[in-house]
Amino acid sequence: MTPIAPHAPTAADVLAAAQRLQGVAHRTPVLHSGMADELLGAQLFFKCENLQRTGSFKFRGAYNALAQLDAAQRQRGVLTFSAGNHAQAIALAARLLDIPALVVMPEDAAAAKMAAARSYGAQVVTYNRFSEDREAISRRIAQERGMALIPPSEHPQVIAGQGTAALELLQEVPRLHYLFVPVGGGGLFAGSLLARQALGSSCETWGVEPEAANDAQQSLRSGQIVQIAEPRTIADGALSTALSPLAFALIGQHAEGITTASDPQLVQALRFFAERMKTVVEPTGALAFAGARHGGIELRGKRVGIIVSGGNVDLARYARFLSD
Amino acid sequence: MTPIAPHAPTAADVLAAAQRLQGVAHRTPVLHSGMADELLGAQLFFKCENLQRTGSFKFRGAYNALAQLDAAQRQRGVLTFSAGNHAQAIALAARLLDIPALVVMPEDAAAAKMAAARSYGAQVVTYNRFSEDREAISRRIAQERGMALIPPSEHPQVIAGQGTAALELLQEVPRLHYLFVPVGGGGLFAGSLLARQALGSSCETWGVEPEAANDAQQSLRSGQIVQIAEPRTIADGALSTALSPLAFALIGQHAEGITTASDPQLVQALRFFAERMKTVVEPTGALAFAGARHGGIELRGKRVGIIVSGGNVDLARYARFLSD
Repeated sequence: MTPIAPHAPTAADVLAAAQRLQGVAHRTPVLHSGMADELLGAQLFFKCENLQRTGSFKFRGAYNALAQLDAAQRQRGVLTFSAGNHAQAIALAARLLDIPALVVMPEDAAAAKMAAARSYGAQVVTYNRFSEDREAISRRIAQERGMALIPPSEHPQVIAGQGTAALELLQEVPRLHYLFVPVGGGGLFAGSLLARQALGSSCETWGVEPEAANDAQQSLRSGQIVQIAEPRTIADGALSTALSPLAFALIGQHAEGITTASDPQLVQALRFFAERMKTVVEPTGALAFAGARHGGIELRGKRVGIIVSGGNVDLARYARFLSD
Repeated sequence: MTPIAPHAPTAADVLAAAQRLQGVAHRTPVLHSGMADELLGAQLFFKCENLQRTGSFKFRGAYNALAQLDAAQRQRGVLTFSAGNHAQAIALAARLLDIPALVVMPEDAAAAKMAAARSYGAQVVTYNRFSEDREAISRRIAQERGMALIPPSEHPQVIAGQGTAALELLQEVPRLHYLFVPVGGGGLFAGSLLARQALGSSCETWGVEPEAANDAQQSLRSGQIVQIAEPRTIADGALSTALSPLAFALIGQHAEGITTASDPQLVQALRFFAERMKTVVEPTGALAFAGARHGGIELRGKRVGIIVSGGNVDLARYARFLSD
């Protein structure tokens, strides 16, 4: 089996994804906070993907990819490797489309995450993350069972689907000067850049990474994909060691740049979201706001879009962030 | 000075309040949760007043009352007694209308609450809640300075303003069978009953009180206002010892009934809101959902509106509810 390099997604793919997701994904609300505006001296518009189905934007890409599988592939099923939001997204999208789904998760993953994937009807296969390679396991199962492997970022229709969040924001809030987007594997950021292109918007679009996991920032600077072996940050949705090649190509071509936020800045942002905006955000979901606030980009007087990417955080852990 | 009994607000007052609040109060989102629907076997629609300006529905009533003061009264200013959401609401509404505001608060009120009222430009006067009577202090200041006293519930235009939350929900979600509303002083509940009347809706409308502060339930049963001297519940927004007479008259005439929720049921609801709906709700704000879930009313197959009244809760206290 020779792997075929996937084609790059286009602006048209994002528009098609938006059609496909209509009535299936939530059109999430755009929130506004006078207090946040005062803090930054700008007008901020928060696109709340923490209120998306399964609690993160990942549902958009998962559903968009699965909805395009043919009948034979649907029957054989899909699988992915993820301990996080993408796993839940694939599990729900598969259930809605009546496709069998399997998720490869580390055996020490949070019980709640396994339970969530199972509650959507997915089969969970565990592995030892110290001695086994999850991608090799996934490829073997995919081959044995004829299942389609849907990775979290390296898939054109996943990237196109993720772009629909920014598309909705740019459509709903005219004349944004800036857009800030969290960056892990890069699918959300790459998709957002395509969304901007689809609408012919000139909004400056910045990615935001955790300070200690700034592989994408380094990649953009050096012109090639840089890996960070063991990134340490509370932003567990941005722990991917490197950008997906598909995302990297799009980001290198279209992005204004990437800035960073530190873990204490993320905690501060989580507290602001809870106290002032009454919304529960996971650490990764706070990246864009923290980056806009602390990333060194002058935003005074500007209209600024912020993608709040997700809200899945264990309650006990979340309570610790709030009470620290 | 002979106090004049305030006239009862009408359905037309709620419609007029909605006009007055247009573009001033947020039209708060109505959220939906597949998980909540599964729990109750019903379709639930959550009207999120925790996302209202100042973090609770109280802004509606405060602004509606203040906007109707004449020029002379506006110049002399307004005052209220409250350590909670009504104080913040009066402070912000007064600032927007350029009216001086004064808030009488216990000297041991949370520093954050005093700071919030001051941040909106209100003057704060403190009293000793063990040795002094806040209503007497308020009346004295009102008389000395010619300020208008705007109480939290016993005011027709406050009640009419509070009704606009239910009005928006009933307009946005057609054919509701049930509506659940938190009850403290009764202004929100009374206003909601007028909103139903304004729209000619036949939706069964229930109030929900804390189990240990069920004075309104007792009042409705006995046909006269019952007081509970020192109610003990985590629902600090429903600690009023008795219904306001204006609210009691409307509730007695129009309400289907009042049910209750216990403190542990409120905590369970707070956790559900955070974990599943990613929204921060204060204990009082969780009353309607907890009452719909545990109040003994058969809702299977029905369309049910839930008023989430507010989200103002000290973060450290909130963190304890989440991690218990």
